[in-house]
Amino acid sequence: MRTGPAVPNLNVSAGPFSFLEKGPFLLPTVIDLNMSELGIVKTEYVDFDVELQLESGRLLGPLTLAYETYGRLNDNKSNAVLVAHAWTGDAHAAGRHDLEDRKPGWWDDMIGPGKVLDTNRYYVICSNIIGSCFGSTGPTSINPRTGKPYKLQFPVVMVRDMVRAQQLLIDHLGIDSLLTVIGGSMGAMQALEWGIHYPERVRSIIPIAGTGRASPMAIALNALARQAIYNDPMWRKGNYKPEHPPADGLALARAVGHISFLSDPSMQLKFGRRFSARDGQFDFFGQFEVERYLAYNGRSFVDRFDTNSFLYLAKVLDLYDVAWGFDGLEDALSSLDCPSLWFAFTSDWLYPPYQTEELIEVLRKQDKPAEYHLIDSDYGHDSFLVEPEKFTPKIVEFLDRLSAN
Amino acid sequence: MRTGPAVPNLNVSAGPFSFLEKGPFLLPTVIDLNMSELGIVKTEYVDFDVELQLESGRLLGPLTLAYETYGRLNDNKSNAVLVAHAWTGDAHAAGRHDLEDRKPGWWDDMIGPGKVLDTNRYYVICSNIIGSCFGSTGPTSINPRTGKPYKLQFPVVMVRDMVRAQQLLIDHLGIDSLLTVIGGSMGAMQALEWGIHYPERVRSIIPIAGTGRASPMAIALNALARQAIYNDPMWRKGNYKPEHPPADGLALARAVGHISFLSDPSMQLKFGRRFSARDGQFDFFGQFEVERYLAYNGRSFVDRFDTNSFLYLAKVLDLYDVAWGFDGLEDALSSLDCPSLWFAFTSDWLYPPYQTEELIEVLRKQDKPAEYHLIDSDYGHDSFLVEPEKFTPKIVEFLDRLSAN
Repeated sequence: MRTGPAVPNLNVSAGPFSFLEKGPFLLPTVIDLNMSELGIVKTEYVDFDVELQLESGRLLGPLTLAYETYGRLNDNKSNAVLVAHAWTGDAHAAGRHDLEDRKPGWWDDMIGPGKVLDTNRYYVICSNIIGSCFGSTGPTSINPRTGKPYKLQFPVVMVRDMVRAQQLLIDHLGIDSLLTVIGGSMGAMQALEWGIHYPERVRSIIPIAGTGRASPMAIALNALARQAIYNDPMWRKGNYKPEHPPADGLALARAVGHISFLSDPSMQLKFGRRFSARDGQFDFFGQFEVERYLAYNGRSFVDRFDTNSFLYLAKVLDLYDVAWGFDGLEDALSSLDCPSLWFAFTSDWLYPPYQTEELIEVLRKQDKPAEYHLIDSDYGHDSFLVEPEKFTPKIVEFLDRLSAN
Repeated sequence: MRTGPAVPNLNVSAGPFSFLEKGPFLLPTVIDLNMSELGIVKTEYVDFDVELQLESGRLLGPLTLAYETYGRLNDNKSNAVLVAHAWTGDAHAAGRHDLEDRKPGWWDDMIGPGKVLDTNRYYVICSNIIGSCFGSTGPTSINPRTGKPYKLQFPVVMVRDMVRAQQLLIDHLGIDSLLTVIGGSMGAMQALEWGIHYPERVRSIIPIAGTGRASPMAIALNALARQAIYNDPMWRKGNYKPEHPPADGLALARAVGHISFLSDPSMQLKFGRRFSARDGQFDFFGQFEVERYLAYNGRSFVDRFDTNSFLYLAKVLDLYDVAWGFDGLEDALSSLDCPSLWFAFTSDWLYPPYQTEELIEVLRKQDKPAEYHLIDSDYGHDSFLVEPEKFTPKIVEFLDRLSAN
């Protein structure tokens, strides 16, 4: 697990190292970098000596944020785009950390020269959310009051707190106003919170596969994941040793999430009823392909994610309610004045389209400039990662119109 | 947990004790028995000294079946209805075992004098499925080869094997041909297998909320349940002591099932986003109502169900494929000659309506007498238990037409 340096680097680099600067290292047999690739990028860390007041009333600080940037901030600082990541994502949204990287960042399809978020035009920023375990302050960070990792001493945070922390980063980067905040799933929640709570600092938002509040079905699925971890004796109420995490529990918890990100048709397509036991289907411990897939992916997740972070972020999702602290949904959305572009996916059963449509209905009654597209996709909640080509043309148009203004 | 007598009673009683025979015991302050109630009923046990050849090729025997009957077999033995129960059900479908029983049998809404399955007209039979833990032979039964409980020595069985065992009971009760076989969920699978494999012994079938084969989504949910049990150190590969079951694992496994039986709208209605922590939502261990409900019901399930039985029956569901052993679905359904009456429920996401509709489409192409109704209900897979009034009029008509022939 990557957790950033013990003393985060306060000297923030200007942006990515492009592959052209690293020309001599380029070996076509390793990876095929071409002009649409970002090349080598680096995660930066910035420390803020603040005490962030959280929604819970508790204080969190000092604060470290891990982030990456791609492209260059223009002279009038009007081309900054914030990409907000989902539950288990990180700041590494695009490019590669080194030439041996097997995979680029998690939304590399979207970000790069000539891509939807065109780094020749936009200055793209992605920061790891607080509560995570990829460099920003979270349960694995050192609690300054004790000198030891927070673990369950970490405060319960909300999406609103994550966005509040991102303000510090935007200040740090010298940006007054973002062209847009874009993200899927928990990223959509962050985009919406930006639009409502920082109307002077964001000129548009693009929430994708989001919701205005977690449904009891979504909460129930997270409840399964939580209980899977609590049931693991290695969890020790969060006091596991990093080298001995509650692997069985976390792998099972991840499998719950996996199912909720997929869909009935995508699983039919991917696995069908194929069986993988050597002794045939009458072997008690025989597994269907789908079962083996879930187990395998659950296991590999254990190597890259911290269990307490997983639990805190599950809670963030459950607590999410855009109307929290307002007199209902209408009141909350009345503060959203900027243009918004929304996408939901037909087969998403975690945050089904009706949940986005509830928000759109209110926004339209309020004559807000909200554009909504229901995208026909079989890939469930994950559609925003699997089939970006189905909705990205709308994003390009939307950003073109915004930039023209 | 009830597991039936060690030496099952070979003397089978004629049927239920009606409440009229038990008149003096009737205390209105205890329960309100009226003319539409069956009154006191009793589970019977019958032993078969056979070796049942299973689909896997293994042999299972001797065999005990637990069952209940309500009403009386008519002189020409034409009024017998077999009720097939679901995963965690039992033979106790209607009436009460004693006057202190808080609840009647699991489908008491449907079975009794003047009810849909009118015990003044029909002789209703419900038998516990093999593999279960409520009196019929299953993993808790004694393996005659070892003199000890089977546990994981029990063979993997299929729905087809359950139905084969039910044949023995029908023979035992002196019935040549059943008026119908009716059941929901796994009960629907049994009804379908009866119709296909024993066309000479069944005059109709009524599958409710069923499927022709388990989808990878349904299998994946069972995979979570299985893994929850395997992760529990108390499970000991099935060799737990009955008094020390893997309670954490089984409770979590049951919670997975619960979620799949409910639906997004039914959970919205029942729980909303109500929170139940004393310290408010920023308490790390605070629970939403839905979470508390799942935990509570998971726990209470541990007291009444055997873990190994749960696992074997999950496997039965996963392995279910009506086309198994046939050259595809068309070939399998070509053997279904009797009238069939099918129901699916709009909000059922475990066995969604399209899965029943796939079967109906084939049956209609084959000019088979298949009647299908899609029922609009918000109660998910459980709709067949929660809102029977939405579909039972169709059953009454169907049975009236059959009886008239």
